[in-house]
Amino acid sequence: MKTGKFIVIEGLEGAGKTNAQQVICDFLTQQKIEFITTREPGGTPIAEALRNLWKEGIAGEHTTDKAEALMIYAARTQLVETVILPALQQGKWVVGDRHDMSSQAYQGAGRGLGNLIPTLAQAILGNFKPDLTLYLDVNPATGLARARGRGQLDRIEQQHIDFFHRTREGYLSLVEGDPNAVLINAEQPIEQVSEAIRNALTHWFNTQN
Amino acid sequence: MKTGKFIVIEGLEGAGKTNAQQVICDFLTQQKIEFITTREPGGTPIAEALRNLWKEGIAGEHTTDKAEALMIYAARTQLVETVILPALQQGKWVVGDRHDMSSQAYQGAGRGLGNLIPTLAQAILGNFKPDLTLYLDVNPATGLARARGRGQLDRIEQQHIDFFHRTREGYLSLVEGDPNAVLINAEQPIEQVSEAIRNALTHWFNTQN
Repeated sequence: MKTGKFIVIEGLEGAGKTNAQQVICDFLTQQKIEFITTREPGGTPIAEALRNLWKEGIAGEHTTDKAEALMIYAARTQLVETVILPALQQGKWVVGDRHDMSSQAYQGAGRGLGNLIPTLAQAILGNFKPDLTLYLDVNPATGLARARGRGQLDRIEQQHIDFFHRTREGYLSLVEGDPNAVLINAEQPIEQVSEAIRNALTHWFNTQN
Repeated sequence: MKTGKFIVIEGLEGAGKTNAQQVICDFLTQQKIEFITTREPGGTPIAEALRNLWKEGIAGEHTTDKAEALMIYAARTQLVETVILPALQQGKWVVGDRHDMSSQAYQGAGRGLGNLIPTLAQAILGNFKPDLTLYLDVNPATGLARARGRGQLDRIEQQHIDFFHRTREGYLSLVEGDPNAVLINAEQPIEQVSEAIRNALTHWFNTQN
C-alpha cells in the first residue's frame, strides 16, 4: 500500500502559518507530489461546525475548558478518520495547519489542563503522529501584533498575554522532545522564514528517500 | 455546605424515561425538596447544539463513533460544570434524563468502543457519580414499538436492533455492578412502572435520612 506523509505547521497566532503552508505546497508541487491541505480544528462540515461553536459559543454561553478540549478532539478524530487517513492511504501527502501539538500547547500548557490532553491524545489518536512538524516560533507580542494587523482578534486571541506565554513555553518543550519537529525562527522577515522552511523541508525530504 | 442529590433515569428509547422523570419530580415536590431537571446530551445552549450536530449531522456528514463519544462527553462536562454541580452545591436536587451510564451502554457496549468510554469518563468526570440511578429495563422490541408510536425514529433509533440488544446487555451488566443503581421492570403497564419507581425511590429515600 502506498502511503503519503503528514506534514504539520504549528505556532502561535500570527506566527505565519498560512505563508508556511504555501511554501510547503509549492515545494511539494515542484516535487510532483500529490497533496491535500487541512486546517484544525476544522476541515469537514462537522469539524467546522465544532470549531465555530467553540470559537463563538451560542446564546452567550462559552465552552468550559474541558468541553473545549473534547470538542477539539472530536473535530480532530472526524478529520483524521474521514480525510487525513484516507488521503495518506491513497498515497497523497497532507499539509496540516495545526494538529495535536496545538492541543498539547494551548489546552495542555496554556490552560493548564494537566494530564487530560495526553490522555485524550493517546485514547483517540494512539500512535498516529505527523511525519514532520514545523514549529514557527514567535514571541506572543510579535504574533499578536501581526494577527491584529489582519483584523479583529477572536476570543482565543483576546485572552491574556500570559496564556500565550504559557502556550509558547509548552510548544518549546514539546518541540525539544519530538525528534520529528523542527523549530523555525519566525521572528525573522517573512522571506527569511520562507527560506528556513524550504531548507528544513529539503533537508528532511532528502533523508526520507 | 448544603448538597443536593443527583438522581438519574436510564434506559433504552421507549423505556418510559419521561414518565419516570415526572414520577420522581412529583415525589420530590411532595417531600418539599427543591430540584431541577436535566436531559443528556443537552441541557445548555452549547450542549443542545452538540446534541443536534451529533443527531442530525451537517451537510450530509455524520459523526464517526469516536467523534460522537467526544461530543457527548463535551456536552456532559458543559452541563455538569455549569448546571448540575452549581445546583447540587446550592442544595438543589437534580433529576437527570440520562447521564454517564448511557455512554457506557450505547457507545461502550452498543458501538463496541472498548476502553475509550471508561477512559473518557474517568478523565472528565473523575469520582462524580449519581446518588441513585433508576434503570428502566425493556426489551428493545418493546421500546422501539413505543418510540415508533410517538413519531419518526431518529438516526440512533433507526440503527439495527442488534445495536439495542448490545446496549441493553451493557445496561444490565452496569446496573449489576453499581450499588447505587436499581432495575425497574419497564415491560409492565405504565401505572405499575410508576408504582415500582415510587417504591424504589421511597425505599432509597428512607435509607438516606
